[in-house]
Amino acid sequence: MQDRIHTADAEPGDDATVAGWVHEIRDLGGIAFLILRDSSGKIQIKFEKDEMDEELVETGLSVSRESVVKVSGAVEEEPRAPTGVEVTPEELEVVAPAEPELPLDPSGKVDAELSTRLDNRTLDLRKDEVQAVFEIRAEILRAVREQFRAFDCTEINTPKIVATGTEGGTELFPITYFGEEAFMNQSPQLFKQLIAGSNVERVFEIGPIFRAEEHNTPRHLNEATSIDFEGAFCDQNDAMDVVEGVVTAAYEAIVENCQDELEALGLAAEFEVPDEAFPRLSYEEAIERINATGELDEQLVWGDDLPTEGEKALGDDVGGHYFITDWPSEIKPFYIKDHDDDEQLSTGFDLMHPRMELVSGGQREHRHEKLIEGFEQQGLDPEQFEYYTKMFKYGMPPHAGFGLGGERLVMTILGLDNIREAVLFPRDRQRLSP
Amino acid sequence: MQDRIHTADAEPGDDATVAGWVHEIRDLGGIAFLILRDSSGKIQIKFEKDEMDEELVETGLSVSRESVVKVSGAVEEEPRAPTGVEVTPEELEVVAPAEPELPLDPSGKVDAELSTRLDNRTLDLRKDEVQAVFEIRAEILRAVREQFRAFDCTEINTPKIVATGTEGGTELFPITYFGEEAFMNQSPQLFKQLIAGSNVERVFEIGPIFRAEEHNTPRHLNEATSIDFEGAFCDQNDAMDVVEGVVTAAYEAIVENCQDELEALGLAAEFEVPDEAFPRLSYEEAIERINATGELDEQLVWGDDLPTEGEKALGDDVGGHYFITDWPSEIKPFYIKDHDDDEQLSTGFDLMHPRMELVSGGQREHRHEKLIEGFEQQGLDPEQFEYYTKMFKYGMPPHAGFGLGGERLVMTILGLDNIREAVLFPRDRQRLSP
Repeated sequence: MQDRIHTADAEPGDDATVAGWVHEIRDLGGIAFLILRDSSGKIQIKFEKDEMDEELVETGLSVSRESVVKVSGAVEEEPRAPTGVEVTPEELEVVAPAEPELPLDPSGKVDAELSTRLDNRTLDLRKDEVQAVFEIRAEILRAVREQFRAFDCTEINTPKIVATGTEGGTELFPITYFGEEAFMNQSPQLFKQLIAGSNVERVFEIGPIFRAEEHNTPRHLNEATSIDFEGAFCDQNDAMDVVEGVVTAAYEAIVENCQDELEALGLAAEFEVPDEAFPRLSYEEAIERINATGELDEQLVWGDDLPTEGEKALGDDVGGHYFITDWPSEIKPFYIKDHDDDEQLSTGFDLMHPRMELVSGGQREHRHEKLIEGFEQQGLDPEQFEYYTKMFKYGMPPHAGFGLGGERLVMTILGLDNIREAVLFPRDRQRLSP
Repeated sequence: MQDRIHTADAEPGDDATVAGWVHEIRDLGGIAFLILRDSSGKIQIKFEKDEMDEELVETGLSVSRESVVKVSGAVEEEPRAPTGVEVTPEELEVVAPAEPELPLDPSGKVDAELSTRLDNRTLDLRKDEVQAVFEIRAEILRAVREQFRAFDCTEINTPKIVATGTEGGTELFPITYFGEEAFMNQSPQLFKQLIAGSNVERVFEIGPIFRAEEHNTPRHLNEATSIDFEGAFCDQNDAMDVVEGVVTAAYEAIVENCQDELEALGLAAEFEVPDEAFPRLSYEEAIERINATGELDEQLVWGDDLPTEGEKALGDDVGGHYFITDWPSEIKPFYIKDHDDDEQLSTGFDLMHPRMELVSGGQREHRHEKLIEGFEQQGLDPEQFEYYTKMFKYGMPPHAGFGLGGERLVMTILGLDNIREAVLFPRDRQRLSP
């Protein structure tokens, strides 16, 4: 459709061809209006019944909502029209008729359950506020990549079909791979480390991860997007600087490039870029502050993992993003390095949003012997990971990194209630299609 | 390592700390040199044995190749050094010693088989020319995304775990998904169409695809990167314009931003951006030209798929990228639309590089009834795809798109012999690890 222009580009005085969906028809008797919608916005098509070809009027006003039509005609100024212009059609073609009964109403006048929306994403995405989420999601990914490049990182792609999981504990989806047992990768962890140990030094990857966890909550997915960083000659503080940079860059890019989308979401007035470095609390400080809130029935003691209510209490207390650093070694995975002067204390960190955990990271164990010990302590067979561990014998520099949940980032930035709203086609225990 | 600078940033007159891998040690008797390598290049560390701390000299000259060392000292001009500067060490620390026997020689003095290289990617990527491939790969992805955005496309991510394959014919990897049968997606085809049918209109995705084909050739992978486009209100000619734009953008970005990498690959002198629109030959013209070359034992007739030798003969004849358009409908998948005036002729197209096929695309069938017919003709049960077909009942605009093989793009741009050279950790029938 080389001759078609976007409705937003239709200027008074033009003869234009526009095409899009029938958003609404308003028949006022002698005059009627068809509101045509496309990716750029909406435009009014005017039908003056007595002055126009009868068949054209009949076709234009009997077409069902959400049908695709193509209209050619003169564009004129009309202050009463929603966008200040209207088209008087000379030609009108119904390109793709819609059935009159829609499973979901894209005009948004009728509310729909999330599951109905997900079953009918094509229709759902014809709503401005839903389209806005995914336009912003795309902008977040763009901004994050740009920021990683500003940090001198190279984009990588690591395999999603793997022979062994990254961590023994988390559940894996098994695959049959030419008769062999294989799995869908739950994290690019081991692979990104292997690349950070080469001349490339600093890498990032944005790609799918797969977790067969039985969680079924508003903040878990079984297929998610992981934003990963790994950098040679970095420690956990460097990695936290990178986290701060990419998260802030995402907020900044939205302010700069997505005002229309924020408007559609009703967020334009309140949206704020985090304006300070995220506080870095040690795990010890974190449990003290949680205990001090009095929100928990039982006081936390050193070594406890933080319960969700504890995270919530601390989030309310801090009031913005914050890091928790220096976790007890025993509750962090084997590949996280301990502090040199205290083996009970790891260099692992989490980035928390008041609503949930966003990032897990740390400096990695780069010493071959210690790494093998770590596997054994975690009850994993180091032999199975030899493809990974052997590279630690040939000059593996100290390195650090993190994994940032892509959907959680979108969800917290936009204040979405359910993580499924941040994915086009979510995968969970109940949902495998579409 | 906040105090560490890249070797490329060490300026005469500085006191600097550099860290990296021991590339080489040259002991000339009274004087010796250690060449230190990092992501930015190499630098010479000078040891004047009689004038320096004995232990420092001993440590610096006995360290094995590929160990990681950290060196602090004065940077001085030295015209005879490889980069014109050298460091006289005041401190030297072996951060991560390497075993003396390396499974692969990163200096490149000893050739290695591809399988040895892939088993030891960390060491392999310490070679300039290997690192260059992956720096260029990253730049290609960056440039392609930027070009898609210039074409008004929104980045999307579609699921990799799916209930049904895109096409019946191609083999799928089965997964067990919470007790249900599922598959790893072989193409985002159906999902990207569902989004193009919404207000988003134009989408792109760069992500993994999985094909359980038993091919084991230098140009097939079982896990690959697909660069996908889909646009509402586009026909096959619009889609070909987009292909041309993104492929050309990739070449241009390399010229602009990757001269060092082209040098490392020995391609700087000969590298050329395609300077003209890619010729668009009809299938009919293509078989005529192939027959005219006399390279095939048997003449091709209408309806034949093009054999590899035929593609090769035509590629030599044309001498650059070219499209083949207007394929017989029966050898294109169900979702490709036929020409309105000839049902035997499809709107499908391929983009060919003289060495291989890069892209498959076309205008899509957007009419619900025709789509259902297509499923049946292809021996697929439309019921199984209802999640997809039902959206075609609610105003699915005409649309077109393509899938471009990411690794094939890298391979043809850089003239690599084997597609496995374009992937960090390739997956094929024999290779599941690392």
